[in-house]
Amino acid sequence: MTRRRVHAVSLLALLLLFFLPQSRAQTPPERAAASRLIGEVFANGQQLSYVSALSDRIGSRLTGTANARRAEEWAEGEMKRLGLVNVRREPYRMAASWERGPASAALVSGGNNRPLAVASYTWTPGTEGPVEGEVVDVGAGRPEDVRRVASQVKGRIALVVPEGADLDSVIYNFYRAAGLVRELKDAGARAVLLAADKPHSILYTAPVEFTATGKLAALPTVSLAREDVLLLRRLLSQNQTPRIRLDVHNRIGGAFDATNVVGEIRGSGLADELVVVGAHLDSNDLGPGALDNGAGSGAVLETARAIKALGLRPRRTIRFVLFTGEEEGMVGSIAYVERHRAEMDKTVAALVMDIGAGRPQGWFSMGRTDLDAEIRELSEPLAQFGDFTIEHAAFAATDNAPFMAEGVPNLILIQDETPYFPVHHTIADTPDKIEPRDYASAVAVFASTAYAIADRPQRFGRRLTADEIKRMADETKVGDQWRAAGIWK
Amino acid sequence: MTRRRVHAVSLLALLLLFFLPQSRAQTPPERAAASRLIGEVFANGQQLSYVSALSDRIGSRLTGTANARRAEEWAEGEMKRLGLVNVRREPYRMAASWERGPASAALVSGGNNRPLAVASYTWTPGTEGPVEGEVVDVGAGRPEDVRRVASQVKGRIALVVPEGADLDSVIYNFYRAAGLVRELKDAGARAVLLAADKPHSILYTAPVEFTATGKLAALPTVSLAREDVLLLRRLLSQNQTPRIRLDVHNRIGGAFDATNVVGEIRGSGLADELVVVGAHLDSNDLGPGALDNGAGSGAVLETARAIKALGLRPRRTIRFVLFTGEEEGMVGSIAYVERHRAEMDKTVAALVMDIGAGRPQGWFSMGRTDLDAEIRELSEPLAQFGDFTIEHAAFAATDNAPFMAEGVPNLILIQDETPYFPVHHTIADTPDKIEPRDYASAVAVFASTAYAIADRPQRFGRRLTADEIKRMADETKVGDQWRAAGIWK
Repeated sequence: MTRRRVHAVSLLALLLLFFLPQSRAQTPPERAAASRLIGEVFANGQQLSYVSALSDRIGSRLTGTANARRAEEWAEGEMKRLGLVNVRREPYRMAASWERGPASAALVSGGNNRPLAVASYTWTPGTEGPVEGEVVDVGAGRPEDVRRVASQVKGRIALVVPEGADLDSVIYNFYRAAGLVRELKDAGARAVLLAADKPHSILYTAPVEFTATGKLAALPTVSLAREDVLLLRRLLSQNQTPRIRLDVHNRIGGAFDATNVVGEIRGSGLADELVVVGAHLDSNDLGPGALDNGAGSGAVLETARAIKALGLRPRRTIRFVLFTGEEEGMVGSIAYVERHRAEMDKTVAALVMDIGAGRPQGWFSMGRTDLDAEIRELSEPLAQFGDFTIEHAAFAATDNAPFMAEGVPNLILIQDETPYFPVHHTIADTPDKIEPRDYASAVAVFASTAYAIADRPQRFGRRLTADEIKRMADETKVGDQWRAAGIWK
Repeated sequence: MTRRRVHAVSLLALLLLFFLPQSRAQTPPERAAASRLIGEVFANGQQLSYVSALSDRIGSRLTGTANARRAEEWAEGEMKRLGLVNVRREPYRMAASWERGPASAALVSGGNNRPLAVASYTWTPGTEGPVEGEVVDVGAGRPEDVRRVASQVKGRIALVVPEGADLDSVIYNFYRAAGLVRELKDAGARAVLLAADKPHSILYTAPVEFTATGKLAALPTVSLAREDVLLLRRLLSQNQTPRIRLDVHNRIGGAFDATNVVGEIRGSGLADELVVVGAHLDSNDLGPGALDNGAGSGAVLETARAIKALGLRPRRTIRFVLFTGEEEGMVGSIAYVERHRAEMDKTVAALVMDIGAGRPQGWFSMGRTDLDAEIRELSEPLAQFGDFTIEHAAFAATDNAPFMAEGVPNLILIQDETPYFPVHHTIADTPDKIEPRDYASAVAVFASTAYAIADRPQRFGRRLTADEIKRMADETKVGDQWRAAGIWK
């Protein structure tokens, strides 16, 4: 070492002593990064602006619509503006497009043509002119319910009242819909009324069939307002036979390309290892999708913004991905994994946020029990946010699913569901439902954990082998969901 | 400038460019400090440990008791350990000591000697042997209530059921107690039963008379469990005359010195200007005082710890003060202001936290409307914590009061009261009532605001003139409370 360099190094040491707080040396760097990211999200966080841009300025973002394209372009621009690298929109094919047309329904048996509140489920066919039929009650729509009424369904309109509002029920009803409508068609039904479980005549939407195949639902299927469901059930209980007229127009088009939006912060030491930080940019189309999933998209962008604003640089590359086609069955994330399959060995983890803007409560570790100790360690600097749970349940309900099927460690942030389920997929999914402190807490936990996984010396967990994946899929039954979603052929 | 120094300065500039994030230059320093303090409180905050030390390890801390002395010594040690300067315990005189003795009560008129749940209010005399008397219902205990029953009170035991559980009611009942008991004594009552408004037989305590004079309450006064209050009222409504035996032993002693605990972070540029960051260390004695005011004390210490841990140094001196004697009528903070009166012109602000560990909701600006713009500006980096209100109401209920009477800008952090009022001054005031994220949010807001006021270039508000103080005191009626508390002679 030359004398000149010794001098410079001494000066450096002196300056560091002067500029760095004394206690800094005692704080492990991963804890210091968590602290700075939390503070940045609370003090300067733009997550609410991102949600506002998506939900107030763009609006509903059903994949394939002009709004969805605007959102993809906006997200690409935002990632570039943040200084991310390798920003790109990665196209994938959807086999059919769908746009909502007018839908109306009336109770015609009483003679007064009483209007009923309905909205079409997405990717369902129209009625090709008004159809009329008597209502038959199919209960909760489980296979045994359909079998019970099969002989009475022919030429009639089926009323189904799915049960349950918790996550398990929502996932069951989501996966049940396609088979339910097919069974009802086979039994001769002309259309399906699915009861909305929301208050104040709020209607609900989702696709009935899903996957990128573009297959439409077997029958016209509409959400029916809870109040009108109760009306029909009162009439049925009085042994009347309510007769309905239904008129649904939807615009169905050909194949098109949607795009996932991707950008990166390159790692400093292990740049070829990847941490995917993702959420879906698309929404259903009855409302502007502020919680589902403007909130998750805002968290992904804010994670990128905060890391850049603080000048932090993780060991591994963080790849920020805003998926589209999620509402149609994780079509965008399935396409992402297919395109990047060669990188799956190097994909250390995929973190996804998709339960709205509620306060953080822990992590879904998706059938993995081997990650518990590491998740607990990563959660240590987040203790003030409350007791975190680790839930091992595995399910395919958002964009982590195709990563899970590849054996890649994948986490969904568990959030308080109570502000989420009452409004998701409805007209009421608007930014006023967001409590800023709860949302900032969720974003802070999401960002800190993503950064910690990208920056820690050791890798987070490991990729499961094909045998281990199969065993986990069988044990948790998630394999059935992967098949239904087209993740497993 | 010599060539050698130019070289060093260039190297410094180079190093700063290398070590500081690029975006730092765009973030105003006050915002950067807020961000770092918020993150430090969430990621490394010791506020819960401080509360545990005070409430789990030391326990109830009624001023003048051995526990209170242990808390004073612990706090002094903690401030030294944090590296504060000028750490000291400043003594002041209390004219009488008080320690709880056994208290029992029974309903004797029914013949079965049914026990009633009671606990003595603090600084109330014992009964000097059992006393017996018929119960007379004095309603809510307002002056007109006493006048209404005055002719029936002689030789009897008064039952008072104070009304209201919100802040205004709590303050009214607090200030009403001394006069109420004196009026009842003048009317000939032998003792007073004050209804507890808590569930599950939880009893309440507080002093009845207060100020440093050591004046005891005019009559033995006990908290009576809500369930037993309802029993007595049922009997009264049946035109029975319940007769009570009351036996209360308290240990009353002579004058003693209590101490406020003081430590400082010296300012870098305007070191003779002071920002007082305070809370009361003492508690009532039925429970361990986790919310009232372990939480505030923990916030004061964590503010100091976080600033030191980050190596931040504000322009002005921050003086951290843990007051004692608060429960007896802000005796410690009154003594502090008397001792430091010569510094009041240089005391830029006093910030106090004393509404438990609930989430932050804004600031009480204590009769000041001139501070609104500055408070709003200080709250900008805290927007994610929710919409902050500024409440102009002025009241003397905690340690800001003597600063207010000096015209010094003083703020109390408004916090969600719902977890606080049901347990404060009761056996249930324990750390399990603290929701860590809500508490961290409150501490983060408190610490960031205190630091911002200490570090901003311009002074926060100004000291009111004597005329302005008088006018504000008259308009808000806080002057009456200052007189009752001995702040104004």
